[in-house]
Amino acid sequence: MTIRVGVIGTGLIGTDHANKLVNVINGSTVSAVTDVNRARAEQVAAELGPDVGVFDNGHDLIASDVVDAVLICSIGETHAEYTLASIAAGKPVMCEKPLAPTTPECEAILEAEVRHGKRLVIVGFMRRYDPGYRQVKATLDAGTIGAALILHNVHRNATVPESFTSFMTMTDSMIHEIDTTRWLLGEEITSVQVAPPKRTSRAFPHLQDPQFALFGMESGVLSTSEFFANCQYGYDVRCELVGELGTASLVNPVVASTTTGGQDVDAVPPDWRVRFGPAYTAELQAWITGLRRGEIVGPSAWDGYAATRVTEFGVQAVRSGERVAIDYIEKPAIYR
Amino acid sequence: MTIRVGVIGTGLIGTDHANKLVNVINGSTVSAVTDVNRARAEQVAAELGPDVGVFDNGHDLIASDVVDAVLICSIGETHAEYTLASIAAGKPVMCEKPLAPTTPECEAILEAEVRHGKRLVIVGFMRRYDPGYRQVKATLDAGTIGAALILHNVHRNATVPESFTSFMTMTDSMIHEIDTTRWLLGEEITSVQVAPPKRTSRAFPHLQDPQFALFGMESGVLSTSEFFANCQYGYDVRCELVGELGTASLVNPVVASTTTGGQDVDAVPPDWRVRFGPAYTAELQAWITGLRRGEIVGPSAWDGYAATRVTEFGVQAVRSGERVAIDYIEKPAIYR
Amino acid sequence: MTIRVGVIGTGLIGTDHANKLVNVINGSTVSAVTDVNRARAEQVAAELGPDVGVFDNGHDLIASDVVDAVLICSIGETHAEYTLASIAAGKPVMCEKPLAPTTPECEAILEAEVRHGKRLVIVGFMRRYDPGYRQVKATLDAGTIGAALILHNVHRNATVPESFTSFMTMTDSMIHEIDTTRWLLGEEITSVQVAPPKRTSRAFPHLQDPQFALFGMESGVLSTSEFFANCQYGYDVRCELVGELGTASLVNPVVASTTTGGQDVDAVPPDWRVRFGPAYTAELQAWITGLRRGEIVGPSAWDGYAATRVTEFGVQAVRSGERVAIDYIEKPAIYR
Amino acid sequence: MTIRVGVIGTGLIGTDHANKLVNVINGSTVSAVTDVNRARAEQVAAELGPDVGVFDNGHDLIASDVVDAVLICSIGETHAEYTLASIAAGKPVMCEKPLAPTTPECEAILEAEVRHGKRLVIVGFMRRYDPGYRQVKATLDAGTIGAALILHNVHRNATVPESFTSFMTMTDSMIHEIDTTRWLLGEEITSVQVAPPKRTSRAFPHLQDPQFALFGMESGVLSTSEFFANCQYGYDVRCELVGELGTASLVNPVVASTTTGGQDVDAVPPDWRVRFGPAYTAELQAWITGLRRGEIVGPSAWDGYAATRVTEFGVQAVRSGERVAIDYIEKPAIYR
Repeated sequence: MTIRVGVIGTGLIGTDHANKLVNVINGSTVSAVTDVNRARAEQVAAELGPDVGVFDNGHDLIASDVVDAVLICSIGETHAEYTLASIAAGKPVMCEKPLAPTTPECEAILEAEVRHGKRLVIVGFMRRYDPGYRQVKATLDAGTIGAALILHNVHRNATVPESFTSFMTMTDSMIHEIDTTRWLLGEEITSVQVAPPKRTSRAFPHLQDPQFALFGMESGVLSTSEFFANCQYGYDVRCELVGELGTASLVNPVVASTTTGGQDVDAVPPDWRVRFGPAYTAELQAWITGLRRGEIVGPSAWDGYAATRVTEFGVQAVRSGERVAIDYIEKPAIYR
Repeated sequence: MTIRVGVIGTGLIGTDHANKLVNVINGSTVSAVTDVNRARAEQVAAELGPDVGVFDNGHDLIASDVVDAVLICSIGETHAEYTLASIAAGKPVMCEKPLAPTTPECEAILEAEVRHGKRLVIVGFMRRYDPGYRQVKATLDAGTIGAALILHNVHRNATVPESFTSFMTMTDSMIHEIDTTRWLLGEEITSVQVAPPKRTSRAFPHLQDPQFALFGMESGVLSTSEFFANCQYGYDVRCELVGELGTASLVNPVVASTTTGGQDVDAVPPDWRVRFGPAYTAELQAWITGLRRGEIVGPSAWDGYAATRVTEFGVQAVRSGERVAIDYIEKPAIYR
Repeated sequence: MTIRVGVIGTGLIGTDHANKLVNVINGSTVSAVTDVNRARAEQVAAELGPDVGVFDNGHDLIASDVVDAVLICSIGETHAEYTLASIAAGKPVMCEKPLAPTTPECEAILEAEVRHGKRLVIVGFMRRYDPGYRQVKATLDAGTIGAALILHNVHRNATVPESFTSFMTMTDSMIHEIDTTRWLLGEEITSVQVAPPKRTSRAFPHLQDPQFALFGMESGVLSTSEFFANCQYGYDVRCELVGELGTASLVNPVVASTTTGGQDVDAVPPDWRVRFGPAYTAELQAWITGLRRGEIVGPSAWDGYAATRVTEFGVQAVRSGERVAIDYIEKPAIYR
Repeated sequence: MTIRVGVIGTGLIGTDHANKLVNVINGSTVSAVTDVNRARAEQVAAELGPDVGVFDNGHDLIASDVVDAVLICSIGETHAEYTLASIAAGKPVMCEKPLAPTTPECEAILEAEVRHGKRLVIVGFMRRYDPGYRQVKATLDAGTIGAALILHNVHRNATVPESFTSFMTMTDSMIHEIDTTRWLLGEEITSVQVAPPKRTSRAFPHLQDPQFALFGMESGVLSTSEFFANCQYGYDVRCELVGELGTASLVNPVVASTTTGGQDVDAVPPDWRVRFGPAYTAELQAWITGLRRGEIVGPSAWDGYAATRVTEFGVQAVRSGERVAIDYIEKPAIYR
């Protein structure tokens, strides 16, 4: 059985995903695409192959008989609408992060899914499929480093466009550290504080860049998080988990090194597509393989809600500079 | 179009490949299997899915209408026979290394393929698909390290069974270094000498282990090669290419590290399936993607012949301890 | 000319220093020792050689004609007294950190030295002599990584005795990060906040361990600092300086590695004596070489004052959990 | 007691050593220098300090009452003459490598020292004092990697002058690997073969560069050795010792790294003075500390003889391309 996926939003990441579903993933194809820019959707459809339908809008795509599962890659503001429509249609749906930009929207999705009675939704937190993060988690879970005490995160990006705002350091970028922190430690974030470092002169003046945040966990574990949007030198994601007996750390993936002119050189990935390309592939493959077995495999709508919840308080913390406590609705049974 | 592959030989590697063709590779399925142990073939077929035929022998499988392409994973002595039959049937065929254990057999395959008029055969030298080796080659080809002068190879295996012989250090193991040397440098090996080190007490007395060989290239480049069959500590493949301006080196793939008890630890892969699993996948995917486009993508029958040719002289060199010159038949036009 | 040093305090570090001054450093000897435990002082004197005088107390030692320079390694509470006596005697003095436990004492030393008219005092912040820290500073000073924005510090110790308190995380341990931060960045620390992580179960309940602090700099640079007194696994000091164009990082000193049993292993230093032994040697040699040339080479009394000033506010921050602003007296001209 | 050293030969290395003996080493001074270029000797003496005598020749220096120990840094052809004169004078002598360029000269030194009845001579094989090599040896001696089987050596130099010949790859450069091989393994080299790689176009045509040699040991251990005189990229010495249970490897000393412009960079040492400067210091300190205790500490005249013996056969091997067996005179009792 081949899973026929309908892709909503054929921008950069939607096109990447669609290409993988057609040419890389085992067991899937893309049967339908749609985009607010119809010409773009038609171009992508043509490149994907002869049998890809172009739909007027996400709702028609979701409703179509040729679509077994929905992949939402449109802008964040549309995520809740399409996710809810997919649930209403009883179709599995993978939504790129964030699940929705606001917690009321996320809560509506949780309610709809709970009403549906079983999970349909996964959220695109691809780092959970990175072999490095998985090994850090496996090391913790095996007891090798004892109980977790501190998690150090670093997330650096070469450059961002002028449209990037200080709040987006939370909602667009640190949301990844928020999810990996929750996932690695298996507990919720209960406070956030932001401590802005000196601003780089290489960014636009409206942007606090780099940014530094402290996340407090239920158990008292501290998760520190540096995000640097315009670090210039490349894409660099680091994570060290400090336990009572030792530490586990991501190692930047390097397959070969070069020595010339007095320097031993390891390349730094230029961007997230290079660094996390294999994780995106693994995430999609896990989703499709699961669907072929009748299972929903991937981060849940609750994971999406919790991450958005933290970013909302995180934005407050960016504004106030104060430590902000975070609370949650009760976790529905289907997510436990 | 899904490529329906028939798999001859359902031992360890045949089963691995079949599983990947069904569950991991995009665009392929397994339609037929056969094995000298029919029960084994039937078990593998059942695990692969409901529609996998079990054939009495490789010839019936090759001839079957349900088989678009042939994958030969049976013992080396049968490789030539099935490869020739595949060529006779006009079907694409991937043959695990070696193409054949003797050069006359390889030459017969070359003749048959030349007579057929275009390539059908690829040989399973999967290291060419390892990201590290590819980066070493890319670094050389980009001119970063200048012209190649020396290539250092190390190939270590935790343990081998008692049946492993000193000649197999050439025919089973160093054949990988022989192929990567030819491929990285783009030239043939013209001499081989073997310089046996002290034998480990951890191997059976009949086995010269470790082994050390020097391969001379057409251009004068020297390729050194240590093979250690029973190194105990894990699976470890290294390669350093020394050029006029610098060097390029494989880096053992590490995704996370652990620090406890006074030690910073990076794991060493336990075996070739872990170390080169992704390379095997990439090799199969490249083959299948090529077939869907009507192309034959992968190391050629000439590559298979040349590797076997070197191992034959290599076995002589193991016997004699002398430097042995290697010659080849003329390279047919379709391989240039 | 050999510099004859009088050593006050022959505990662990005093004995280490004395041995180096006699057996390792070029241009120095130890002519006098004293300790509150006279038997201990006599034993150390005997081991150092036949011509080492044992004095009743630090004041007699400082006054002695056989002492050209004073090295204070007694407990912190005595540092100011002996440093002031050395200044009064017009003798160069190296005082182990802290210069004094309280800022009034430090200020008295500054006043005395200013009154003396030129520098006599250096403080034992040996990390400034570690080749790694020096290279990080050189990289910043060369402009390679652009202007500094963030400094990340990690300082881990295998175990500490029960007498170690939460305040000592500041006064005994983070004082090193405080000094290296000031020295690397060339500016003062203007705020401190403490964010306690989850406590390890491997320490005594009275101790907040690990500890995490944020230091704000005059320019806005943020210096983060993890200290972990009972990390169990070894002694581990890390430092990453993030600039507008890149980063510079300490690399743990490793001279050889071992691979066995599936693991590539680099040793972690067991303690500060192994990790910073060469830095202590370099610090002493620089001091002695300077004295032979008539110069005072090493961190100044101002550096000692500023570090103690930050630790005082740091202790407040440990108590309150709030961000605390730090102010200083005006910097006397002789320290500019 | 200060050891007053007389330095014969004030070229690059003689001046380095003299400076260390005066300004870095504990317990030594330089009392006398001589050089075939008297002006050079006078300049060096003046820079070392006011009390350094300049002698007309090595013999006068050796005979002088102000000289307690002799350090020979003149050209190799003079080594035997001055070493013999030092023995005749009953004075400890450190001779830079080689002990002498020919084995008859070395044998004359052995005879003279044996006649003297106890050791006076050490040879400047400084790598034995490198912390990395020492750790590799300690790992072997501790049994961690089991019995030694193979030793891989790499020795690369940025550039050499036109006067450097193919024979000097043995007598000047690989002599270091010859000594470290003997020392690490604790046995003699019994054969040598040379397998020249492709020549770099960056060297003069008369020079075989790089060079590759195989050294066979008494026990059967194989020691491989690449030497590359004009590798362009820096100074790079590597060593991997492969045992029955694992391997121990030198790690290039790195104290800090830099990441900018898409590259993680570790610096490669530019030359041997940077890479082995600390080893030279440790070697001199061990010699001086030993002399102060009445002991002769350092590689012996036998070590010097054995290394020269191997290089003589190594030069034959360069000429012939054949494997050459090496024999030795009987080892006198004082060297066992």
